[in-house]
Amino acid sequence: MKILILGGDGYLGWPTAMHFAAAGDTVWVADNFAKRKWELEDGIEPLLAIPTLHRRVQCWNEVGGGQPINMKIGDLTNHRFVYNLLREIQPDAIVHYAEQPSAPYSMQNRSAAVMTQHNNVIGNLNLMFAMQAHCPDAHLIKLGTMGEYGTPNIDIEEGWLEVEHNGRKDRVLYPKKPGSFYHLSKVHDSHNIEFACRIWGMRATDLNQGVVYGIDTDQTQLADELRTSFHYDHVFGTVLNRFLVQAVAGLPLTVYGKGGQTRGFLNIRDTLACVDIAARNPADRGDFRIFNQFTEQFSVSQLADMVVAAGQRAGLSVAVENLENPRVEQEEHYYNAKNTALTDLGLQPNLLTEEVVDAMLATVRGQAGRVDPRIIAPQIRWAGGEVSKADT
Amino acid sequence: MKILILGGDGYLGWPTAMHFAAAGDTVWVADNFAKRKWELEDGIEPLLAIPTLHRRVQCWNEVGGGQPINMKIGDLTNHRFVYNLLREIQPDAIVHYAEQPSAPYSMQNRSAAVMTQHNNVIGNLNLMFAMQAHCPDAHLIKLGTMGEYGTPNIDIEEGWLEVEHNGRKDRVLYPKKPGSFYHLSKVHDSHNIEFACRIWGMRATDLNQGVVYGIDTDQTQLADELRTSFHYDHVFGTVLNRFLVQAVAGLPLTVYGKGGQTRGFLNIRDTLACVDIAARNPADRGDFRIFNQFTEQFSVSQLADMVVAAGQRAGLSVAVENLENPRVEQEEHYYNAKNTALTDLGLQPNLLTEEVVDAMLATVRGQAGRVDPRIIAPQIRWAGGEVSKADT
Repeated sequence: MKILILGGDGYLGWPTAMHFAAAGDTVWVADNFAKRKWELEDGIEPLLAIPTLHRRVQCWNEVGGGQPINMKIGDLTNHRFVYNLLREIQPDAIVHYAEQPSAPYSMQNRSAAVMTQHNNVIGNLNLMFAMQAHCPDAHLIKLGTMGEYGTPNIDIEEGWLEVEHNGRKDRVLYPKKPGSFYHLSKVHDSHNIEFACRIWGMRATDLNQGVVYGIDTDQTQLADELRTSFHYDHVFGTVLNRFLVQAVAGLPLTVYGKGGQTRGFLNIRDTLACVDIAARNPADRGDFRIFNQFTEQFSVSQLADMVVAAGQRAGLSVAVENLENPRVEQEEHYYNAKNTALTDLGLQPNLLTEEVVDAMLATVRGQAGRVDPRIIAPQIRWAGGEVSKADT
Repeated sequence: MKILILGGDGYLGWPTAMHFAAAGDTVWVADNFAKRKWELEDGIEPLLAIPTLHRRVQCWNEVGGGQPINMKIGDLTNHRFVYNLLREIQPDAIVHYAEQPSAPYSMQNRSAAVMTQHNNVIGNLNLMFAMQAHCPDAHLIKLGTMGEYGTPNIDIEEGWLEVEHNGRKDRVLYPKKPGSFYHLSKVHDSHNIEFACRIWGMRATDLNQGVVYGIDTDQTQLADELRTSFHYDHVFGTVLNRFLVQAVAGLPLTVYGKGGQTRGFLNIRDTLACVDIAARNPADRGDFRIFNQFTEQFSVSQLADMVVAAGQRAGLSVAVENLENPRVEQEEHYYNAKNTALTDLGLQPNLLTEEVVDAMLATVRGQAGRVDPRIIAPQIRWAGGEVSKADT
């Protein structure tokens, strides 16, 4: 299969590229390095330094043992780059990770919200039109997020909902209630892609992914230079990563609000497995297929408890502190999301066992000297106040 | 009330401004004249020439007899213009018509689709942030469209839907299935505004408006220079206008496909009445209130029959021709949309009676010499082919 990974320099994009190259597929990566620039704006660094994409590609092509990875540098908001890319490569599948991926980033102020929606929505539109022009039979695998759904009081189905209303029935897009301008950008993308499937016969899979944890895949472990990023900061970090770093740094685990916020989670190895399954079982022409891509549900408090316990096993004394929640979100709510489509296609989940938490804690502990405690505390508030003042 | 009309040079914006000025309110209009430029791109003119906004404002302020209308020129995608505008005016209510309003325009090619979503979504985001910064208690009255819903097989409720699923209940945003990149831009706007209500306590009313017909309001009739536009062309024209012009020009009424496409319609006088009702009964802080703003449902074939009958009454022989549908849409479908919220607040509908059709036909007939038959036939196809080639 000829597969194009957009956002190939990212936390998931780079391991995905190596995964397909190891499997013998012809892999192209593209990136514009926007994420590295956004990190610089806030003085944020991943726990481990990440070599340039050029170095990583060179290293893979020397020691990876699979197919070589091909690289293009460019920006999806530049439609000429996208059209030329697809005309040249003629991919069978396109995995689209190339979006601003942070809810807090999008909530900083007007310019960050506008940049996020412009970058994500326009980049995705350019990609759709370029596919229609140059590879209309290709399969778009688009990374969405479980956060698009919000926390409804009914079960979360996989993208579509069978509704009975006043004695009549229809199958409709699941009504979404996203929690940030970032999550909204993904909802906008999903609506645009559903329309392209309907009018052009595009084939697309929307992966509503949960919160990913983990740092190691079969390929990242082949060489230090092949590693992927691990963010624990208040902008790009996710909750389990932050707790592990706080535990190692002797800081209390900071639970925002009551801690009853429940979300879907998955191991980075399962992200690769899910994308692989989607790519090798493409959606039909005209089908807007939606998978909920997570393996387990946890509340924030449950994760804190798991890290406290792992700390005890490792001889670390770990405290928990409840902070005022910087987000506007429900802190106690019903949450029951369906995720059977990918297991039906063969996914074998890697669950968040004590062994997995312990291994992650040990990895983080080995890098304790690189922790920057200044980038952990939340500085971006959903309800405003600071919001919108930065660029009036 | 201090009220700001964004898109005040438009078909609805200008009559809305005069309506509030006549009622004694303090009125500001703002426009960037983008619509006039888009008309020039395709060589499209309204049936009657429309004076510049400067001339219309001057005329109103001389002969209107109400409050004077104040004018600002600028673009919502320029956030500095929007912030300065709201800081200076401090409006109580903002009526937001200032968007690219045409489905066919948005379906021309990539650049038109991207421009439409950029212009509408980013302009609306800038407006939301400027309100949050400078007039957080103001009431946003946002023009949406009934077309956001598509043609679901269940009753269309007013923006929110009570769902029972697997024995649990929730109130969710009504699931939408819009039919063009333009309609999608309005859905994106609605999601963004609902979020601003939720996190900032913004007060907003989303008016999901049907297809508007009519050209005369109490104020447009005061002087020729105060008239508003009447479009019958394939880009900005609506179906009833086109049929009336075709009847007068001796052309067959062109029904796209089977003609069973059913939509909500309303008289321009009722648009003004609905916006008035919304403005004088503002949404509560934090409330994302949605009204379906139409008074009657018609299928395209029913409208054709009505114009044929009006032609007969006027001594015109009118034929009907079924064209291949340039759009991708259901041509026979269930359609039952609710619209009780505005009548509950006092709306007295002006219905599409024979007298109203006859009067519109007479008005158009008086301008028969200005009809340009070259701008009537559809030139933009939803399913592509030409789509996306223009700017590869």
